Amino acid sequence: MNGAPRINAGRLLESLEALGRFGALPGGGTNRLALSDADRAARDWTVDRMRALDMTVRVDAIGNVFASYAGTEQRAPVLTGSHIDTVRTGGLYDGNYGVLAGLEVVATLREAGLRTHRPIEVAFFTNEEGARFQPDMLGSLVAVGGLPLAEALATRGIDGATVGEELQRIGYAGQAPVGAPQVDSFIELHIEQGPVLHQQGVDIGVVEGVQGICWLEFTLEGCSNHAGTTPMALRRDAGLVAARITAFAHELALRYGGRQLATVGAVELRPNLVNVIAQRAVMTVDLRNTDGAALARAEAEMLGFATRCAAEHGVVLGHRRLARFDPVAFDPALVELVAQEAQELGLSTLRLPSGAGHDAQMLARVCPSAMIFVPSVDGLSHNPGEHTEAHHLVQGAQVLLQVITRLANRAG
Amino acid sequence: MNGAPRINAGRLLESLEALGRFGALPGGGTNRLALSDADRAARDWTVDRMRALDMTVRVDAIGNVFASYAGTEQRAPVLTGSHIDTVRTGGLYDGNYGVLAGLEVVATLREAGLRTHRPIEVAFFTNEEGARFQPDMLGSLVAVGGLPLAEALATRGIDGATVGEELQRIGYAGQAPVGAPQVDSFIELHIEQGPVLHQQGVDIGVVEGVQGICWLEFTLEGCSNHAGTTPMALRRDAGLVAARITAFAHELALRYGGRQLATVGAVELRPNLVNVIAQRAVMTVDLRNTDGAALARAEAEMLGFATRCAAEHGVVLGHRRLARFDPVAFDPALVELVAQEAQELGLSTLRLPSGAGHDAQMLARVCPSAMIFVPSVDGLSHNPGEHTEAHHLVQGAQVLLQVITRLANRAG
Repeated sequence: MNGAPRINAGRLLESLEALGRFGALPGGGTNRLALSDADRAARDWTVDRMRALDMTVRVDAIGNVFASYAGTEQRAPVLTGSHIDTVRTGGLYDGNYGVLAGLEVVATLREAGLRTHRPIEVAFFTNEEGARFQPDMLGSLVAVGGLPLAEALATRGIDGATVGEELQRIGYAGQAPVGAPQVDSFIELHIEQGPVLHQQGVDIGVVEGVQGICWLEFTLEGCSNHAGTTPMALRRDAGLVAARITAFAHELALRYGGRQLATVGAVELRPNLVNVIAQRAVMTVDLRNTDGAALARAEAEMLGFATRCAAEHGVVLGHRRLARFDPVAFDPALVELVAQEAQELGLSTLRLPSGAGHDAQMLARVCPSAMIFVPSVDGLSHNPGEHTEAHHLVQGAQVLLQVITRLANRAG
Repeated sequence: MNGAPRINAGRLLESLEALGRFGALPGGGTNRLALSDADRAARDWTVDRMRALDMTVRVDAIGNVFASYAGTEQRAPVLTGSHIDTVRTGGLYDGNYGVLAGLEVVATLREAGLRTHRPIEVAFFTNEEGARFQPDMLGSLVAVGGLPLAEALATRGIDGATVGEELQRIGYAGQAPVGAPQVDSFIELHIEQGPVLHQQGVDIGVVEGVQGICWLEFTLEGCSNHAGTTPMALRRDAGLVAARITAFAHELALRYGGRQLATVGAVELRPNLVNVIAQRAVMTVDLRNTDGAALARAEAEMLGFATRCAAEHGVVLGHRRLARFDPVAFDPALVELVAQEAQELGLSTLRLPSGAGHDAQMLARVCPSAMIFVPSVDGLSHNPGEHTEAHHLVQGAQVLLQVITRLANRAG
């Protein structure tokens, strides 16, 4: 594909800056919760940009927006895209980059007077972040038939409003049906949101799949007592059990090795006073692995340890799963295509899993799918300081262009 | 002392109920922060009760109140008492019991027409709890010359008012001097506030001293990163270090054995989210031991472990001492007298240290001092559910009467 047109670096970078102005935070970054006024403004701006490229825009019943750049044949399109909602303290690249790079691909082809056999569609999906409505990846989940539309529309956000009400309010309750998309393949370009590519000095991450996730919440009920008058043997210390579970989670991840991750990010003690034994602790454990069987073992081990440890300390354990997703493996041929196109451009590549969830894992249910990662400086994301070097942004978009073109022109 | 008069159980119990009405909480218990309006009302009521017993009342410059029941000789008095301030969610017994039992002793002797050789004084000390003004045991500390009066009066409380202003406001800025009390001996009756006597079914705790205390605060600065994208080896997890310090503190207490206690009661993580590695953790460690040398070793070990553990995880450790008191040993002869008098009454006894701080540890600086404990049901204290069985309250007061009478009548 040495003859492929080159994307316009300046236009791509300017578009990222421009989209970042919607919901901009004073010190940098953006706050653009799904279906908020800022999201509406960003959607309107993005749709205008789509129409300016002579793309045909349709909005589906969950507010996902698809813009089609016609091919020379009437066939199922090659789809790309991501999301433009952000967390409350988001950056400029998470999601936005994949959508705008998709539009930049179309703009580049259009300027060069090129059309592929299949249509190219660029989409942005509703509420990927899950920062306002649960679950995350809501729009793509509904699009592929993974969640009934009515249930999704009735979902109430952190501010009490429902998805359906907010879609109506901002004018994105569309007519296009959901549940059975006709798509040839899906390719999503995204920042890594982790430190691996940056640390290893690699240009392009070839994403083989998405880790499985298990979120557990443990509620530990002990007994609040005076730290100075209660002998060690008579204590029922919920905080100590929480600490031991935390240490165990870390040891488990090291013992499993490979792609096993374990994080205790949230712990709340009550009454949380220096001289009072904690009566109650609520904590979360975030387990991830690309290996579904290992993840299931890790979950069972965590629960087993927590049960034994709580009992040993006379503490009552409650637990619930806050989330559970099996690992997703992307299409091997498509993954290989990403690696080839990057290498043909002389870029270094690393195969890795995605640690975060992405719309691509939903699309993978209905069509061959894959992702392209570019490096995140220091792995920072969900943070106004989120940054990717300009040359990496440009390289990633060029790889996307070549992968899309190859997919949309291939025979069969 | 078989001929000693018996205290009036009904009168004692009624007085506890009556005093509990000042600052009463809706569901039980009291909120009577030092020098508050509720404390003023409780002080006025207690002083009235003292005067009704023909006791001579004096108020010192830090608001401690002393009521004297004259002896047959002009000699240094035997002092008893405690405090009537409470924490925000206090019970009816902590402090109050020692003051009212002292007055019940005087009432009983007076009804029997008995006077001891030495005067008997019953005191309540200002701001023992430390729930409004720091440090705790403020009144007794100033009384024995451990803190300059001016500094104590300038102490600002959690609501911004100073001790001096509040003493003036409630009318308890007294004239009696502080700093060099003339006292023969001090005996304080108190609820245990721990589970030991209740668990072991013992009537009377013979308190041999007060544990030394060391409060450490650790501030751990790591790096906030995505739980799904940050490999275990690249993490700087402040929450994990906090958990490992917590587990180490517990292991240390078990390894030291004896009277070593270790408690991590307070931990705060930031940002405290399920899928974000904690950037910051602030935690406390409460160490106590009756053995001062062991306590110093425990403190050094904790600091050493925290330093190593933080470094191992790339986390920056800050630390400060929030409090440090050496252990206090009570007067052996007085401790023995408490045991003897309880045993002569046919009561079971157990020698134990006090885990909490008490005014007696301040008085121990200037005169032979000791304490008598009665059982706390389930060890509950600083809690509206704080409870001591009526027969234990009566037994404790009877032991107090006999100890005081013995002390106040002894030769020399």
